[in-house]
Amino acid sequence: MKNKPLSPLFNLDVFQREAKIKNGFFQKDILSVDQFGKDDLDYIFARAEEMAEMVNRWGACDLLKSYTLACVFYEPSTRTSSSFIAAMERLGGKVIPITEGIQYSSVSKGESLIDSMLTLEQYCDLIVLRHPEIGSSAQAAKYAHVPIINAGDGAGEHPTQALLDLFTIQKELGRIDGLKVAMVGDLRYGRTVHSLTKLLAQYDVSLRFVSPDTLRLPLDLMNELIDRGIKVRETSKVADVIENADVLYVTRIQKERFSDLVQYDEIKDYFEITTELMTQAKQKMIVMHPLPRVGEIQYNVDKDPRAAYFRQVQNGMFIRMALLAAVLGQA
Amino acid sequence: MKNKPLSPLFNLDVFQREAKIKNGFFQKDILSVDQFGKDDLDYIFARAEEMAEMVNRWGACDLLKSYTLACVFYEPSTRTSSSFIAAMERLGGKVIPITEGIQYSSVSKGESLIDSMLTLEQYCDLIVLRHPEIGSSAQAAKYAHVPIINAGDGAGEHPTQALLDLFTIQKELGRIDGLKVAMVGDLRYGRTVHSLTKLLAQYDVSLRFVSPDTLRLPLDLMNELIDRGIKVRETSKVADVIENADVLYVTRIQKERFSDLVQYDEIKDYFEITTELMTQAKQKMIVMHPLPRVGEIQYNVDKDPRAAYFRQVQNGMFIRMALLAAVLGQA
Amino acid sequence: MKNKPLSPLFNLDVFQREAKIKNGFFQKDILSVDQFGKDDLDYIFARAEEMAEMVNRWGACDLLKSYTLACVFYEPSTRTSSSFIAAMERLGGKVIPITEGIQYSSVSKGESLIDSMLTLEQYCDLIVLRHPEIGSSAQAAKYAHVPIINAGDGAGEHPTQALLDLFTIQKELGRIDGLKVAMVGDLRYGRTVHSLTKLLAQYDVSLRFVSPDTLRLPLDLMNELIDRGIKVRETSKVADVIENADVLYVTRIQKERFSDLVQYDEIKDYFEITTELMTQAKQKMIVMHPLPRVGEIQYNVDKDPRAAYFRQVQNGMFIRMALLAAVLGQA
Repeated sequence: MKNKPLSPLFNLDVFQREAKIKNGFFQKDILSVDQFGKDDLDYIFARAEEMAEMVNRWGACDLLKSYTLACVFYEPSTRTSSSFIAAMERLGGKVIPITEGIQYSSVSKGESLIDSMLTLEQYCDLIVLRHPEIGSSAQAAKYAHVPIINAGDGAGEHPTQALLDLFTIQKELGRIDGLKVAMVGDLRYGRTVHSLTKLLAQYDVSLRFVSPDTLRLPLDLMNELIDRGIKVRETSKVADVIENADVLYVTRIQKERFSDLVQYDEIKDYFEITTELMTQAKQKMIVMHPLPRVGEIQYNVDKDPRAAYFRQVQNGMFIRMALLAAVLGQA
Repeated sequence: MKNKPLSPLFNLDVFQREAKIKNGFFQKDILSVDQFGKDDLDYIFARAEEMAEMVNRWGACDLLKSYTLACVFYEPSTRTSSSFIAAMERLGGKVIPITEGIQYSSVSKGESLIDSMLTLEQYCDLIVLRHPEIGSSAQAAKYAHVPIINAGDGAGEHPTQALLDLFTIQKELGRIDGLKVAMVGDLRYGRTVHSLTKLLAQYDVSLRFVSPDTLRLPLDLMNELIDRGIKVRETSKVADVIENADVLYVTRIQKERFSDLVQYDEIKDYFEITTELMTQAKQKMIVMHPLPRVGEIQYNVDKDPRAAYFRQVQNGMFIRMALLAAVLGQA
Repeated sequence: MKNKPLSPLFNLDVFQREAKIKNGFFQKDILSVDQFGKDDLDYIFARAEEMAEMVNRWGACDLLKSYTLACVFYEPSTRTSSSFIAAMERLGGKVIPITEGIQYSSVSKGESLIDSMLTLEQYCDLIVLRHPEIGSSAQAAKYAHVPIINAGDGAGEHPTQALLDLFTIQKELGRIDGLKVAMVGDLRYGRTVHSLTKLLAQYDVSLRFVSPDTLRLPLDLMNELIDRGIKVRETSKVADVIENADVLYVTRIQKERFSDLVQYDEIKDYFEITTELMTQAKQKMIVMHPLPRVGEIQYNVDKDPRAAYFRQVQNGMFIRMALLAAVLGQA
């Protein structure tokens, strides 16, 4: 977002305005996990807890009644768009949903992304943007006069996913420091794994990486972790880490990554979470997954109280409520 | 819906909660017309009348302000989805509309219907589900922790359509007992005819079935009516029933049902409602149609005050308002 | 809209009702710029100014809380549909968005436009209609019992675009009388140019038409202007008009209009707005564009304070807020 005078939409007296600006998110773009230091995470998680409390008690409120969000999805993602829409609506805000068909419409046909943003910002106070191209949100934020929240830019970033992942760990286990977190699946291409790993690296954690040999964590990210003094270890079977893990973060391994399907069939069982495997896990630990799953976690694991992946979905709504309110100066 | 402790979203004191549960719909799934006994129908129709009164006087209210509905349509049906959206919004509730493109999205791509439901329920208090497969709503309801309202599951059920049809008869004619109801068109495949017939069978009515020979009412449904002591008669021309009918419920005959189009052309005039035909009908009777129509009712019949099919559409909104409020414990 | 008794939705006492009817828009269809005399324009522009003030101060209000709008787009137009949705929501009204996939849905499949309108009007107080066929809105308005606002009917009209264009001129320059307005680009097929020209013809303006020879203003419209005593002049280069123009209204020239692309390349530079060209323009003038642009205005012109095209977009929201409120009897 370009530097601009505070919009008269924010009808705050000077004192309030100062307070808002101090929280660090007021009128700021949310583009990358790199923006979030530990204090920022503490702040957003505390607000997200309040949002959970509000939803459980009241369902909805009028905090953002004066604000309008444009929810612009250049590729469909029902899970993420629904989460943002529910978040804004439960805070009483208005939503302009632009989630489908945008590719056939005059806004995008021949029109640059920037022009589309400069147009849509005329109607709203905030834009949530999902776009298949890496860097698109940063590009939009450079020109737009309202804050942009990156809801996924291709192989780039999806910061609200990483925030909700970390928030889930803290909410479920009460802390982050001291935990053993195992990342499972496609660690090479998995955007969510990379982002969560970066956030975890700010804490005193041990990381275990469990992947097929061809889908190991990228070298530069691994080196960064080592340089920061994070305890890391790599393996190729979940069975190796299940006993000690506090968090098992499971992701999908796409068949298409393997030129040889025989190879895929040989190794896939090493990464599947079954009720049998869960008997070896600690009593107090959680299984997470960014969803959708396609076979990585057996359905009958759902009944296990340690299966946290659907609670993780709801935490996404709370995190997004917290961010929307913070960026609009109301949290 | 699985048995679960009452959600803290329903912030009712004990007395109110008891009252709500007694109405029989609080936190219940709405899957089939078979759930509705006469008392239930009386209850819902009384609430729907109140909703009509509210809309006519005020347009909208805040009754469901704290609640969020996910309106999930795996196949498009603008009429039904618009009706539910209008119903929820006029009651002040929030809507997450998931009506298009869901088939291309991560929620459904490779993900099971159950996982999609377990995900979306994290954002909302209630799910309205339209899905092309028979039994899908019952399947969803078995796993979901929020109530499911079936908005059509293929050749299966579409209970809110049957409810609005029956409500229209009572609203327009003041009663159901003692009426002569003629069903016209495709009685073999017509889902709406089957469901309405089942509901009517609870009352003291005479039923006339008017269809081409190849599209007669299924044998088991006919036998069920006879066993229950309902007066039934079948014929192949509307002209045979027009004079005595209190209700003419007209449905579409699809050309595609006929292997021989000559045969279709021969008989189609027997089922068309014209102004000429209407001169033979009673002064006090109604013509209904679930819509869309494609030629079964001439456009110039619309001006006849007995043409009730567009009022029937609005009654659908009132019935859905009543159901939403009842299931959420607010009616 | 057909003559009908005032809906009980409009719960006004007699005095108020009289006042509303006098404003000339209450319960009226908005189909064409030809409906708008100078008094009407003054009235709507004054209301739009109030809306701008409200949005800047409060963001949103509850003026239309009791009303529901069906926003029906048979062809996608994100810019226009978003504008209407934002307008209705900022006034506290409810929106049924029917913007995508309608072509695959039962509402339109085999169903006439009129039947779709007669169905959807049962849910709402007002319909905004975009349809690719000329005359479709007038046709809909003839049968519907709620007001219809034409949001574009193919090569026909798009009255709210013309209103926002004229409103932008007055808002930016403080007046319309006495101005020199230059229309640039495809003046033959450009719907927005024709509509704006008709509105401008009610004022004391000079018009300059700048187009390729094959895309000149249609003869009948030119003759109409001359008959009304409007000062007109035609040219084929922006450079000829830039020095004196108070308003430069730029539109897109589609390559497809030229059978010979060499010809297109030869002339296109005559119509491009560059920073260099802008140095020759007056200090107090504005550049407008209905958007999307595809190269007609260089991106670095955006920084020029005279570039009014994005402010023009926001004015569209204010004009639509004014119209919605006026038609519903609340402005």
